[in-house]
Amino acid sequence: MVDSNTNNTPTDDLLKHHLEQVIELLGKQRLEETILQHQTMPRHDLVETLLHKRHQASLKQKLDQLHAADIAYILEALPLEQRLVVWNLVKSELDGQILLDVSDAVRHTLISDMDAGELLTATEQLDTDEIADLAPDLPEEVMQELLESLNGQSRAQLESVLSREEDTVASLMDFGMVTIRDDITLGVVLRYLRRRGNLPEHTDKLFVVDKQNVLKGVLSLKRLLIHSPEAPVDEIMSREVVSFKLDDEAADAARAFERYDLLTAPVVDENHRLQGRIRVDAIVDYIREQSDDEMLTQAGLLEEEDLFSGIWQSLKNRWFWLGINLITAFVSTRVIGLFEGTIEKIVALASLMPIVAGIGGNTGTQTSTLIVRSLALGLISGTNVRKLIAKELGIAVLNGTVWGSLIGIVAYGLYHDIHLGIVMATAMMLNLLVAAAMGVSIPLVRHHLNLDPAVGASVLLTAITDSMGFFIFLGLATVFLI
Amino acid sequence: MVDSNTNNTPTDDLLKHHLEQVIELLGKQRLEETILQHQTMPRHDLVETLLHKRHQASLKQKLDQLHAADIAYILEALPLEQRLVVWNLVKSELDGQILLDVSDAVRHTLISDMDAGELLTATEQLDTDEIADLAPDLPEEVMQELLESLNGQSRAQLESVLSREEDTVASLMDFGMVTIRDDITLGVVLRYLRRRGNLPEHTDKLFVVDKQNVLKGVLSLKRLLIHSPEAPVDEIMSREVVSFKLDDEAADAARAFERYDLLTAPVVDENHRLQGRIRVDAIVDYIREQSDDEMLTQAGLLEEEDLFSGIWQSLKNRWFWLGINLITAFVSTRVIGLFEGTIEKIVALASLMPIVAGIGGNTGTQTSTLIVRSLALGLISGTNVRKLIAKELGIAVLNGTVWGSLIGIVAYGLYHDIHLGIVMATAMMLNLLVAAAMGVSIPLVRHHLNLDPAVGASVLLTAITDSMGFFIFLGLATVFLI
Repeated sequence: MVDSNTNNTPTDDLLKHHLEQVIELLGKQRLEETILQHQTMPRHDLVETLLHKRHQASLKQKLDQLHAADIAYILEALPLEQRLVVWNLVKSELDGQILLDVSDAVRHTLISDMDAGELLTATEQLDTDEIADLAPDLPEEVMQELLESLNGQSRAQLESVLSREEDTVASLMDFGMVTIRDDITLGVVLRYLRRRGNLPEHTDKLFVVDKQNVLKGVLSLKRLLIHSPEAPVDEIMSREVVSFKLDDEAADAARAFERYDLLTAPVVDENHRLQGRIRVDAIVDYIREQSDDEMLTQAGLLEEEDLFSGIWQSLKNRWFWLGINLITAFVSTRVIGLFEGTIEKIVALASLMPIVAGIGGNTGTQTSTLIVRSLALGLISGTNVRKLIAKELGIAVLNGTVWGSLIGIVAYGLYHDIHLGIVMATAMMLNLLVAAAMGVSIPLVRHHLNLDPAVGASVLLTAITDSMGFFIFLGLATVFLI
Repeated sequence: MVDSNTNNTPTDDLLKHHLEQVIELLGKQRLEETILQHQTMPRHDLVETLLHKRHQASLKQKLDQLHAADIAYILEALPLEQRLVVWNLVKSELDGQILLDVSDAVRHTLISDMDAGELLTATEQLDTDEIADLAPDLPEEVMQELLESLNGQSRAQLESVLSREEDTVASLMDFGMVTIRDDITLGVVLRYLRRRGNLPEHTDKLFVVDKQNVLKGVLSLKRLLIHSPEAPVDEIMSREVVSFKLDDEAADAARAFERYDLLTAPVVDENHRLQGRIRVDAIVDYIREQSDDEMLTQAGLLEEEDLFSGIWQSLKNRWFWLGINLITAFVSTRVIGLFEGTIEKIVALASLMPIVAGIGGNTGTQTSTLIVRSLALGLISGTNVRKLIAKELGIAVLNGTVWGSLIGIVAYGLYHDIHLGIVMATAMMLNLLVAAAMGVSIPLVRHHLNLDPAVGASVLLTAITDSMGFFIFLGLATVFLI
């Protein structure tokens, strides 16, 4: 673990402290390399090499004390060149775990620095479910060799996990299970565990199965400990088990873990035969990943970025949504273009029109965010959709009345034209209604079409509220002010 | 648990199915009430009341089978009136747990329906840390009575938790610990646990303390099970413990749980005396809450909304950020106002200006989102900030060149004015530089001032990119085109 004693709590400050020490040592090492290169006097090679080696040794020593996850953090925070220096000093038995812990973008930089042999050594020590997690990033030939090096059972497990779709329970599952029969006593179980000598990480319960490997129940370590060794498993085990099927959605499993405060849960196939288990730490990672993905998509990014990735890499990540935004901006530009004659006559319209469009986008986003959230929680059903739409339209009418009047008065104050004020207020009200209608319907329709309700919703929404905002405002102005 | 047998997996579909059954039963019950009220013939009161009671009974029976968390879900999905009907049918021993499980907004509606006596019964069964979670929502007099009903130790615990700041480790902590001494054998521990007869939920390890309650190490149930009963605790326990201090930040603890895959971890005071523990399910809830809060703030909402809250309630939630947005929109309106003379002469500017402003906002948001994320992960330190800024400005220059030229060409194509095209391209490039500079510096400055880097960042950012976009574009046009 991170601490050599129990006196350090693993705060982010401690991690930063580790990082600073590593950077300092990297700096010293580099300084010497520079001196070595620029030396014009006869070199005292031996002394200098020794000095260099000394700093490298202290860097290695520092790294050896750290947990794999902490080294992963340090690698993320270092620019590419220094990152690879550190990566090459890391104990090779930690390589696999670190590859699992770093972000996708950083993993690519590390893997491109390794040859097939190193990758094989790093991944061979991992569990099958962990290999499956790395699989998309490993070169074909390494995967091939890995598969060959595994025993029959592990290979079958790996192939089965790899063949499952992403975001299913199967993709979160691991195989660290202890199974027992129900016709023995707790005493026999206790002796079996002692003989076994080790338990998979995060074992909080044993899985009770019959001869066909069908799940009968679970025996928590807690119950195993507090009941008499004479008691039969059959009597003590719990038959009410929250279990998952291989093809259940990962998001469902995550919600269930949250609702029922689970630590581990069995995964079964259609015939209720035990296939694996899900651990809460896989769920925690899943939840974090989902929320990160959501944040990145919302900001118009395709994926997370290595902080120090090349500019070209970053551009690829950012251009897709920028392009989409440019197209929608172009569409609203053309809407304005329709009314250039009107704007030429009443130039105040040019100043005022961004307000109508902007506030429409803002209120629409509020609505759609709440709808997306309720959809994710499964709170929206056929029976309450109508109520929801009525509520959101009601809010839009009220918002339109209040903010529309306010803005109308301000417009009047600025340009001393009462009709302009009225047009502004009316346009505001109408665009807020459009925004509410779109804010409800875009996520609902996407959900209905089995598309992710969140992705692209805000881009589509603001495209509509912008164009409609300009159209309504300039259209009303053309009809009533000219 | 949710299933009466092991054949149902707790998917969201199953939950929806429960919800539909409840709604159907509510409907039947309601129909009868209506018939009862509108009956004009002499009433067969007895029969009808019995019929009504029958449906109520089946509703109650349905609810009695459900887990507290599932009832919480159903309450969230029901409009207020039906929600209260269900709430009054729920077994009172589940009340406390359900109040913990529902969202803040729904909790308010449930608590306002309960009198002091009901609240006291509901909360008395809860653990101290759970009472602390509910405390902000409970009426003063109920809290007073609750405090009096607790024994000395629990009261001290509750008061200590309540006095701690939000978002510290203390606010996530619970007191369900089993402590042992280090001078006994595992056999003694096993006998002690059996005599104790029960273990707190989520017990994966026992805490080893000395007479002064100072944490010496932890003994996992796993080690307790696989080692010989003759072995002394002292030899088997692990001394390398990830522990937290009361005032550590909750976010730090969450990251540590993720990094080290923890299930529970001890919380100690300055003198390393054991104060409580953190369970992974509290961490899961914390992570989910943080990511929800982020999403809501991003969308310009103050807090989560009850799906069926009154319109007034919703407006209060939405007006703060709408007001702020209106003010910033007004500012950019005034920037445009400065150039009305120019727009009057070249009306095409009115059509083109939203593109410059909009794409600036989009690229700035991409940058600031990545910076906010890196800050949250603690990846940004003094040594790499310069590299980051250089990278983002480099991207802005490239984006500006590419998209700026593209847009310049489009502008030329639309209006056949080469100078307009050049002004457009230059304005785009400059505004992207502004956006990149702001996207990096706004989160960094907020972080430096110990403010949440995310909150309000995007509003401030788009306010600047909008105003500057209009200013640069119309300013250049005024200087070079007129």
